[in-house]
Amino acid sequence: MDVIDQMRLFFEPRSVAVIGASRRTGYEHFNLLESMITYGYPGKIYPVNPNADEIFGIRAYHNINELPEMVELAIIGTPRSEVLHAMRSCIRKGIKAVIIFSQGFAEADEEGKALQKEIAEIAREAGTRILGPNTLGVTNGFYGFSSGFAQLERSKLPIAVVSQTGMILQGFTRSTIFGKGIDLGNMCDIDFVDVLEYLEDDPEVKVIFLHMEGIKRGRKFLEVARRVSKKKPLLVLKTGRSNRGREAIRSHSGSLAGEDIIYDGAFKQCGVIRLKSIDELQDMAKTFLNFSWVEVRRMAIITATGGGGIIATDACEESNLELAQLSRETLGKVEDLSPPWFSIGNPVDIWPASLVHGYPKVFGVALGAVLSDKNVDAVLCVLPSPVHKVFDVSGIIERTAAKFDGKPIVIWRAGYLYSEEQVALFEKNRKAVVYPTGERAVRALATLTEYAKIRNSKD
Amino acid sequence: MDVIDQMRLFFEPRSVAVIGASRRTGYEHFNLLESMITYGYPGKIYPVNPNADEIFGIRAYHNINELPEMVELAIIGTPRSEVLHAMRSCIRKGIKAVIIFSQGFAEADEEGKALQKEIAEIAREAGTRILGPNTLGVTNGFYGFSSGFAQLERSKLPIAVVSQTGMILQGFTRSTIFGKGIDLGNMCDIDFVDVLEYLEDDPEVKVIFLHMEGIKRGRKFLEVARRVSKKKPLLVLKTGRSNRGREAIRSHSGSLAGEDIIYDGAFKQCGVIRLKSIDELQDMAKTFLNFSWVEVRRMAIITATGGGGIIATDACEESNLELAQLSRETLGKVEDLSPPWFSIGNPVDIWPASLVHGYPKVFGVALGAVLSDKNVDAVLCVLPSPVHKVFDVSGIIERTAAKFDGKPIVIWRAGYLYSEEQVALFEKNRKAVVYPTGERAVRALATLTEYAKIRNSKD
Repeated sequence: MDVIDQMRLFFEPRSVAVIGASRRTGYEHFNLLESMITYGYPGKIYPVNPNADEIFGIRAYHNINELPEMVELAIIGTPRSEVLHAMRSCIRKGIKAVIIFSQGFAEADEEGKALQKEIAEIAREAGTRILGPNTLGVTNGFYGFSSGFAQLERSKLPIAVVSQTGMILQGFTRSTIFGKGIDLGNMCDIDFVDVLEYLEDDPEVKVIFLHMEGIKRGRKFLEVARRVSKKKPLLVLKTGRSNRGREAIRSHSGSLAGEDIIYDGAFKQCGVIRLKSIDELQDMAKTFLNFSWVEVRRMAIITATGGGGIIATDACEESNLELAQLSRETLGKVEDLSPPWFSIGNPVDIWPASLVHGYPKVFGVALGAVLSDKNVDAVLCVLPSPVHKVFDVSGIIERTAAKFDGKPIVIWRAGYLYSEEQVALFEKNRKAVVYPTGERAVRALATLTEYAKIRNSKD
Repeated sequence: MDVIDQMRLFFEPRSVAVIGASRRTGYEHFNLLESMITYGYPGKIYPVNPNADEIFGIRAYHNINELPEMVELAIIGTPRSEVLHAMRSCIRKGIKAVIIFSQGFAEADEEGKALQKEIAEIAREAGTRILGPNTLGVTNGFYGFSSGFAQLERSKLPIAVVSQTGMILQGFTRSTIFGKGIDLGNMCDIDFVDVLEYLEDDPEVKVIFLHMEGIKRGRKFLEVARRVSKKKPLLVLKTGRSNRGREAIRSHSGSLAGEDIIYDGAFKQCGVIRLKSIDELQDMAKTFLNFSWVEVRRMAIITATGGGGIIATDACEESNLELAQLSRETLGKVEDLSPPWFSIGNPVDIWPASLVHGYPKVFGVALGAVLSDKNVDAVLCVLPSPVHKVFDVSGIIERTAAKFDGKPIVIWRAGYLYSEEQVALFEKNRKAVVYPTGERAVRALATLTEYAKIRNSKD
C-alpha cells in the first residue's frame, strides 16, 4: 500500500471502530462517536466498549477481537493507560490505520514520552500507520467523515488544512470552513510529508494551509513541498516565532520548534508562502479561491472618498504594488463626467462626477475604463457603505467584470453599516472579493502575486 | 467669543441656514437638507434657494438677507462659482460660522486655490469662522445635528473623530459609530488645533481619533496635543506614509503632507498614539471605551487549545508583553482538576481538565485564579467557537470579572461559528472585549499600555 492509499484510510474510511466509545450524550461530553454520526458518516461504525452492547442504537462490541469484520480505521479514545493495550489489539486484528485521540504522551511527561515511543515502534513493525496521539483526527466534508468531537458544519470548500492543533478543525476563522482538515497532534508517525503527498494531486483540494509548530523529516518536506507548490498554493502559519512560543510548543505537541529564521529560509526555498496572522489566513482563503493565479504589479484604485484613496495608495506602496499609469483614454472617460475644475488621476476619485451624474453611472464607467486599460493588472474599489441603495453596485461589478475576465477586483467596503451577510452575498458573485480594509485587500493581492511568481518560476 | 464658543456654533448650532438647498429628494441626490431633517435636528432650519418658497414643508428664503432672524451657522452647498457671493452675504448678515460643503477649491485647480484664499481672507477680517471647503461638515449624535448627506444612525458613543475626509463621518469601520465627528476638508480656516481645544474638556467625549493628511500650525498643535493627551487618549491615523500617498494628498485636501518620519517624531513628543491600520482603529475604539487606562506588562493566557495558546504567546512577545510567572497557588487550582500527567503553565491549557470536569467549571476556576494572582496584569482568553453551548462562558466572565475590577480581560473567540451579533452581545457585558484574533487582542492591550504610560508620565 503506498502512502496515498494509506492516507485514504484516514480521510475516506469505509469502516471505523471507535475504541473507548462513550454512551454519554450531549455537547458537554465531547463524544466523538455521537458527532461522527451527526456529521453524517456514510460508512460502518463499530463502537467498542467492554460494558455496552449498544450505543446510540448501534451494536457495540466488548473488544476489538469480537468485530465481525476487518475495519479500515480504528480510533482510540481511552484514557492513556489503556492506549498501548488497545493499540496491540488493533495490530493483532490487522488494522492498518489508527487515530489516537487520547492525550498524555510526548506533550505531557516522561512516562507519556516512553509510552508514545513504544506505541510508534510496534506500529511501525506491523505496518500500521498512526495519526496522533493528542489529535482530533480528520475532517473530510467531501466524504462526510469527521473524527473530531465538534459538531461541524459540513463544507466542500476546496481548501485543505494540515494542522498541529485541533482548533483548526473547527475552522480557524469565522467565515472559512475547510473542506478537508487533519490534526497531526504529536506526529509520532504521520507527518506533514505524508499528508502533502496525499493532497498533491487530490482533485478536491485547490489550496493547502499548514499550521506548523515543528517539523520532522526536514529534507523530505522541502522536496515534497517544492513539488506541491508548483501545483497549488501552499500557505503556512508557522508558530513559535517567539522564545516563549517555542517553549510552549514543547509542552503542546512535543515538537522541537528550532530557530524561526531557519524556517523562513526553508519556506522560501520550497515555495511555501508564510502568513503572519489569522486575519491573513482568512483573507488568503477567499483570494485563492476566487482569483486565478496572476501576477499583479500595476493597481488602479477607484474611490468615492479621497481620504480612502490615499489610505489605499499607502497600502499599495507598502505591499510593493505600483499605482498604474492610466492611459489618456481611461482618464478622459471619467474626466468627461467630472466638473471642469477637476482632473482625474490614480486613485480615480469619482465623487465630483457622481454629484453630477449619479454614483452608479460614474462607477460603472470608471470600472469599465480601468479594466480595459492595458496598463492595469488589478483594481481596488473603495466603496462607500451600502447604507444608501445608490452605493450598492454589486450588480454593476458583476456585469462589468464578466467582460474583463482575469483581472482581480478587490473591494474595500468602507463605513460601518454592512453586515457579514451583505458581504457574503457580494462574494457569491465570485467576480470580486470583499475585504474588511483596503490594507488587507492590497496585501492579499501581493500574496497572490507571490504565489503566481512561485508557480511561474522555472526551477 | 473664544474658540470653544466658536466651535459650539458648528457642533451645536441653534439655527442653521442651508444655502443652495435643493428640492430633490431621495438617496441618490445626497441632499444635506433632507438628511439633516431625517437625522432629527432640533434647531431651526432656514433653506435658502432663489427659486423656492418652501422645501420639504419648510419655508424657504430667496436669499440670506431675507432671513427673519440671525442664524448661528450657515452651510453653503452651491456650485463653486457662487460660493464667494454666498460667503459675502453671510458676512454682511453677521453670521459667525460657515460650513463650505462645495468642492473645487485648493484641491482642484489654480482658480480654486485663488478663490479659497479670497474667501478665507474676507472671513478672517470679519471674524467669521469657516469649516472647509470640500467638507461634509459636522456630526453630533449627542445634540442631533449632522450636516453630512449620509443617513447616519445617531450614536452617543463617547468618541470624537477629527478627520480630513468625509468617509469618517460615515464611520470608518463597520462596528463603530462615532458620537461626534468633524471633516476638516481643505482646512482654509478651522484646523486640528481649534477642534482639539473644543474637545479637550468636552464631557461627552472620552477618546479622540484624528485622521490626518497634513497639518497647519505645527507648533501650536504640539502644544495643544500634549495637553489634551494627558486628559484623554489621542489616536491618529496619519496617511500619506508613501510617496504616492503624499502626492495624492495634494489633490485631495490640498495639504502639504511632509516627510512621514517627522510626523512620527512629533506624535511621540506630544503623546499622540499612531495607529497603523483601519483594523487597529476599530480595535482601539472598543479597547479605550471598555477598559480603564492601566499599564499591562504581565499577561495570563487561558486557552482550550494548545495551538491557540502558542499563537497568543508569539503575539505577546511581538507586542512586548510578558507572560506572567503565575503563582504556585494559581497553577495548583487548575492542576488539581487536570489529569496527573499534565502540568499547568502559562498559557494555562484547560483542555485536559475540561475533559474530566467540564469546560465551564474549569474555565471559571482558571479565570478566577489568574485574576486574583498578583503577578497578572491582564488576561487573554482563547475561547472555542460557541458552536457548543458549553463554550458560551460569557456569564461566567461577567460574574468573575465583577469581583476583580481593573484587570482587562480580552477575548479571542476562535473558530468560525460566531456572528457579529453574538460578539456584540458579549461586549455589552463591558467586562471583557472580543477581538477577531489573538494577535489583535494583544496589540490592543499594548496600545492601551502605551497610553497609560503617556498619561502617567511626569513631563
